[in-house]
Amino acid sequence: MDRRKMLGLAGAGAVGAAAAGVVGAQVFDTPQPAQAADAGAAIPFYGEHQAGIVTPAQDRLHFVAFDVITSKRDELVELLQRWTMAAARMTAGKDAGSIGAVNGAAEAAPDDTGEAIGLPPSGLTLTIGFGPTLFRTADGKDRFGIAGKRPPALTDLPRFAKDTLLPEISGGDLCVQACAHDPQVAVHAVRNLARIGFGTVSVRWSQLGFGRTSSTSRSQTTARNLFGFKDGTANLKAEDTKLLQDQLWVQPGDGPEWMAGGSYVVTRKIRMLIETWDRTSLGEQEAIIGRNKGEGAPLTGTKEFDEPAFAVQDAAGGSTIAMDSHVRLAHPDFNNGARLLRRGYNFVDGSDGLGRLDAGLFFIAYQRDPRRQFVPMQTQLSRQDALNEYIRHVSSGLFACPPGIRAADDYWGRSLFE
Amino acid sequence: MDRRKMLGLAGAGAVGAAAAGVVGAQVFDTPQPAQAADAGAAIPFYGEHQAGIVTPAQDRLHFVAFDVITSKRDELVELLQRWTMAAARMTAGKDAGSIGAVNGAAEAAPDDTGEAIGLPPSGLTLTIGFGPTLFRTADGKDRFGIAGKRPPALTDLPRFAKDTLLPEISGGDLCVQACAHDPQVAVHAVRNLARIGFGTVSVRWSQLGFGRTSSTSRSQTTARNLFGFKDGTANLKAEDTKLLQDQLWVQPGDGPEWMAGGSYVVTRKIRMLIETWDRTSLGEQEAIIGRNKGEGAPLTGTKEFDEPAFAVQDAAGGSTIAMDSHVRLAHPDFNNGARLLRRGYNFVDGSDGLGRLDAGLFFIAYQRDPRRQFVPMQTQLSRQDALNEYIRHVSSGLFACPPGIRAADDYWGRSLFE
Repeated sequence: MDRRKMLGLAGAGAVGAAAAGVVGAQVFDTPQPAQAADAGAAIPFYGEHQAGIVTPAQDRLHFVAFDVITSKRDELVELLQRWTMAAARMTAGKDAGSIGAVNGAAEAAPDDTGEAIGLPPSGLTLTIGFGPTLFRTADGKDRFGIAGKRPPALTDLPRFAKDTLLPEISGGDLCVQACAHDPQVAVHAVRNLARIGFGTVSVRWSQLGFGRTSSTSRSQTTARNLFGFKDGTANLKAEDTKLLQDQLWVQPGDGPEWMAGGSYVVTRKIRMLIETWDRTSLGEQEAIIGRNKGEGAPLTGTKEFDEPAFAVQDAAGGSTIAMDSHVRLAHPDFNNGARLLRRGYNFVDGSDGLGRLDAGLFFIAYQRDPRRQFVPMQTQLSRQDALNEYIRHVSSGLFACPPGIRAADDYWGRSLFE
Repeated sequence: MDRRKMLGLAGAGAVGAAAAGVVGAQVFDTPQPAQAADAGAAIPFYGEHQAGIVTPAQDRLHFVAFDVITSKRDELVELLQRWTMAAARMTAGKDAGSIGAVNGAAEAAPDDTGEAIGLPPSGLTLTIGFGPTLFRTADGKDRFGIAGKRPPALTDLPRFAKDTLLPEISGGDLCVQACAHDPQVAVHAVRNLARIGFGTVSVRWSQLGFGRTSSTSRSQTTARNLFGFKDGTANLKAEDTKLLQDQLWVQPGDGPEWMAGGSYVVTRKIRMLIETWDRTSLGEQEAIIGRNKGEGAPLTGTKEFDEPAFAVQDAAGGSTIAMDSHVRLAHPDFNNGARLLRRGYNFVDGSDGLGRLDAGLFFIAYQRDPRRQFVPMQTQLSRQDALNEYIRHVSSGLFACPPGIRAADDYWGRSLFE
């Protein structure tokens, strides 16, 4: 019994549509819908690509990285199978397991934890990724017999200038990105995956976020980050079909075949020194970003989506958009055309013990090949970006996200393990 | 210019209504509305009592405690005046200051940080409290000449059985509870109060929360905590007018006159050992709580709001609602009639470095006198509650929340300082 049926709430139509994908192991080639779903509705779990990438960015994030603590390949594969079943259920608004939170025997532990009872699917997406250490440990061990399948694009990220990474909140063998319009639904999903994985995986780190800072669809307005600026104006969008082939989705021939249709995700927890920023003048803030704060227009334009005119000079002969401004250094024109599909979130993790809020941006960026996209872009930004005075990169992750689940007998990572 | 006007968004009606309170220093005696506002609307800042107490609990929380770092009384008073002005503006959906985020001179730092531009008031409430250390420091110093005005009810909480409190996230000279339907609006408010207080106060700790676990109005359904159970069924509600006089609002003659119309708030960060809980059987979970998990009915009833029948015995002669169950030990019948108005929130603060989610309940409870309410209740619970095996109290706070702001020339704490 699913959690809405039990309570007689709305949303059954959306659930039915998603659940239909399970029947008869039908193959789905329908692309993810580009329209923002209503906040309670379900987003299809099955498809050519994983949901949660070009899906219009939901409002809330719970991102988790796991260490695999078993050494047995079959236990890992079984976990991925169980996770896939639970993910298909939860994204449709059902309990994590068929018994559910409250319908089992009194003597048994429930197979759902219950805190999402009565809540609609809430646009939940669950997106899995495999970290470099899943293929080969730091000491070179091929733990699960898949070292030969490690994609060259799943590189070890270099150390960038000014990196202040904390290893305990970086990396991981597996990651799951849970996005939803209700944080309780995202947390419920991650918590139940962790519960199912007990004894096989261990939570390495996890991060909550809010206020999506990068729209991933033209149906969305651009939200603001904690510097108060619009963030994601020039983001890759779900509607950029041709660009998505070039820049987002791994193509056949890019590397090992199991990744075709997948994507690579880079995560960076970027602490913002907001107290320092807040005492900086408006003019300085705008010069650093290269856009104005109200409209989000480039300093050479008047509207948010005006293209920056990097050659324009001011009366003194300097560039109107400064050479070390963020918008210039991150622009495809200065990065061999490379672009990213970002879907980061603001975070506040309490305070830092030094009288300041511990706040910033949890950066998430999907791409076809980090060696040609994130790595050169961040190399340049980390050396020159004027914004560096106000930010610290404190965590880092890179994960290979396999293609979508096309049928009910498929599971996360099947193409990798079989 | 307020942030919605600038962008021409909706909500102007609600803002206008709230802003009308500022004009002419009119005195407001209208009680807080008991109906849940629509998620974008403004909640009146002015009134007999502070908003954010019986206000129907909003979906998101950012709670912050500050240490006062100045020794000068006039600086503290000036800060409280500036905070009050900013709070009146922000709860009405305006920028924190009259210049705003983007309309000032390029050479000046903005007087708003900008991340809430375009967002409606979102039901924001800001509620201030004064901690015991504001009146007299641990070493006995009367820092601001108000030691004589410390209410006896603003007691130093005793150490309870099994307390594992972390001092760095406990206590504080001042607290502000920011509740809103949008976390970005709550975070924006706290961040701007911290910005205004730079040099006068320092953030001691702060806590984000989601998924209100205690409804404070009969217009709301009961939400679930991270144990998966409904939480707050027997809570004091805004509609309980007579009970609120008895149990929530400080009455004339209760202590120093400046607190009449105010309330005391206890905060406890309660870590839940969810991994252990999740492996406990459904029957055991229900026995510990004393209610069933699906409906939330007491084990002697069938509906959520059925009164627990504590005398009922099972076939073996034991109590159907166990003697050490949470619902029994927390019930007014076993606490000299004492009740609380709770408005706690679920939290997930990433993970704990031991492979587990760092999750639980940020407990917030308002009351007329903690010496007769929270302290004896928690003394009993901390010794006997079966739930103690699955929880750890890791932070604690007690603050005196003064009465409401009645006029535009009033400020938070005026009755205390003048």
